[in-house]
Amino acid sequence: MSHAAAQAEPSAPITVPVPLGERAYDILVGRGLIGTAGARIAALGARAAAIVTDAHVGPLYADALAASLEAQGLRISVTVLPPGEATKSYAGLERVCDAVLEARIERGDLVVALGGGVIGDLAGFAAAVVRRGVRFVQVPTTLLSQVDSSVGGKTGINSRHGKNLVGAFHQPSLVLADTALLDTLPIREMRAGYAEVVKYGLIDDPGFFAWCEAHWREVFAGGPERDRAVAQSCRAKAAVVVRDEHENGDRALLNLGHTFGHALERITAYDSARLVHGEGVAIGLCLAFRFSASLGLCPRADAERVEAHLKAAGLPTRLGDVPGGCGTVDALLDAMAQDKKVKGGALTFILARGIGQSFIAPGIEAESVRAFLRDETNTSRP
Amino acid sequence: MSHAAAQAEPSAPITVPVPLGERAYDILVGRGLIGTAGARIAALGARAAAIVTDAHVGPLYADALAASLEAQGLRISVTVLPPGEATKSYAGLERVCDAVLEARIERGDLVVALGGGVIGDLAGFAAAVVRRGVRFVQVPTTLLSQVDSSVGGKTGINSRHGKNLVGAFHQPSLVLADTALLDTLPIREMRAGYAEVVKYGLIDDPGFFAWCEAHWREVFAGGPERDRAVAQSCRAKAAVVVRDEHENGDRALLNLGHTFGHALERITAYDSARLVHGEGVAIGLCLAFRFSASLGLCPRADAERVEAHLKAAGLPTRLGDVPGGCGTVDALLDAMAQDKKVKGGALTFILARGIGQSFIAPGIEAESVRAFLRDETNTSRP
Repeated sequence: MSHAAAQAEPSAPITVPVPLGERAYDILVGRGLIGTAGARIAALGARAAAIVTDAHVGPLYADALAASLEAQGLRISVTVLPPGEATKSYAGLERVCDAVLEARIERGDLVVALGGGVIGDLAGFAAAVVRRGVRFVQVPTTLLSQVDSSVGGKTGINSRHGKNLVGAFHQPSLVLADTALLDTLPIREMRAGYAEVVKYGLIDDPGFFAWCEAHWREVFAGGPERDRAVAQSCRAKAAVVVRDEHENGDRALLNLGHTFGHALERITAYDSARLVHGEGVAIGLCLAFRFSASLGLCPRADAERVEAHLKAAGLPTRLGDVPGGCGTVDALLDAMAQDKKVKGGALTFILARGIGQSFIAPGIEAESVRAFLRDETNTSRP
Repeated sequence: MSHAAAQAEPSAPITVPVPLGERAYDILVGRGLIGTAGARIAALGARAAAIVTDAHVGPLYADALAASLEAQGLRISVTVLPPGEATKSYAGLERVCDAVLEARIERGDLVVALGGGVIGDLAGFAAAVVRRGVRFVQVPTTLLSQVDSSVGGKTGINSRHGKNLVGAFHQPSLVLADTALLDTLPIREMRAGYAEVVKYGLIDDPGFFAWCEAHWREVFAGGPERDRAVAQSCRAKAAVVVRDEHENGDRALLNLGHTFGHALERITAYDSARLVHGEGVAIGLCLAFRFSASLGLCPRADAERVEAHLKAAGLPTRLGDVPGGCGTVDALLDAMAQDKKVKGGALTFILARGIGQSFIAPGIEAESVRAFLRDETNTSRP
């Protein structure tokens, strides 16, 4: 099994449909998909494709992708951007829009995002606004982007007022999640993406969480379990997105662990040397469960089980795990209040009654959060 | 009648509904609407409003608008931008988005665009992308923006590759077209806007064109005919937009006169000292009708009637009317081919079988356009 998995030969991919009416699309999950990209993208009827990638991913995969597209007769351009969150800026948007226009992409043509979440969010946003909307295809190259940012149509850039505060809902026409690309992913990025995989189990699928506990090593190693984990995560996210495409309700469940996680990212100034998004989410998931337990909503044993699993997978689980610390309780609360999910001034949390039983809890009092964080800060510090 | 019209006292406005399902909204047309803006905007349920205006319009009307909103208890901010097309840029977008975020505008709140097409397009685009979409209200202050850009949900900025090439479809929640604001509009801008009014008659309403011929002086003077002309134009545009919100078909009819007009704007480098949009449209309408006549599609008498009316209203009607000239036939053709309505390389024109009988004509050969323009250039030059 692991021998077959280690090969890069294409097998039949798993198809995850995202049934959004006239914006419906498929997510394909499998090893070696990048080699089949040309035929699949040509089938969408485009005559040209503007590939957008970054200087980490481009040198590894852009040639293979371009060749596959050119073999189908598509006119190709490739734009290589600096890697990292700073690229998700107004300047980055202008650069990508200009490149797409330069490539004479018309309404029937395509933008192809080859990279992680930064490239997907930025290229997707550019596709949303060039000529008031051209189609785009995602080829996510990290576990995080395969299970999270490539599903749901959220695109955008960062503002000096916060992350992802400027953007659009723009659904891709196709997502090709080539799980073989993860073979070369740094272990820290793999773990960070895995925190989002676990999240789907914690939201509403206790069976999937148990499956993760049993199979996480194979997911990391690249066996067929990896494809299954990616596909199941996409299915779970798609199900929520279909219920609530524009985030007016249920979609907030996907923020489980994120109110805390975003605050930690803000506190650490988005310095990836200290904390990457998925690590913030891992700590945030543990905090959400422990907060739920402290409010008497959730068995303490469930909170401990969440922590044990994330810890086993090599992820941070406590405020004290953040290198350089995470500031005072007040600073954390301030950082949380800045979150864009704040509505009418009240704090909204995603809490849980147990593993796989999360729910939206609006109007949580700042005082009860403060008391909880005070306890956490004390127990976290050595 | 003209005595009553000259007063700024509010009368019952004309309501033009734009029935776009869950994006439906009303356009109100009438004198003195700005004084009632507060109550009307508060009724939308917002708690805060970010007013975006420019340095021409802001000093005239921003205080009155702000006072009307504050009287209803809304939290207000005012952003004043440099006037002119150059503001519709990536930098302008960043500035407005930042101002809207700074003003803590949340999903239920509003951006209010107080100004002409530039402010409407830019503030509307910012509203489309801040937090992936907040609501906005248009208070158009020119005839052109009251009858054109405030209807239909097209928002955007210019790119170095062309005008309006980056943007979004984002419908306003309400449009307040205060026709008293046009009393102080420079006559040249009034005329330019009037070209778009005439266009609606030419597209599919010969009765409205005849009404324009009979009543254009009252429209300019500010009588109740002005309100009627604005309301009828909005109704006409709304009817097309409702049939084709995202410009996949019928909506192209609204481009009558615009393929030529945009080319002229491009040729004159968008120098408003030489040519403003509506003037380009006026010449473009005449060219579209004369081109239709030269192809044997339309009676020559209709083309002459179009020209006579636009000329009577003080608008340019010939290539030779462009100050500084409009270059060679080849340069005009090149400028036309760059238009974003080019699809698959072929030129699409809106032509006419007579006044009020326009239609979409895809796949027009460049050679027949060239021959027509050669004739026009010869007859236009003294």
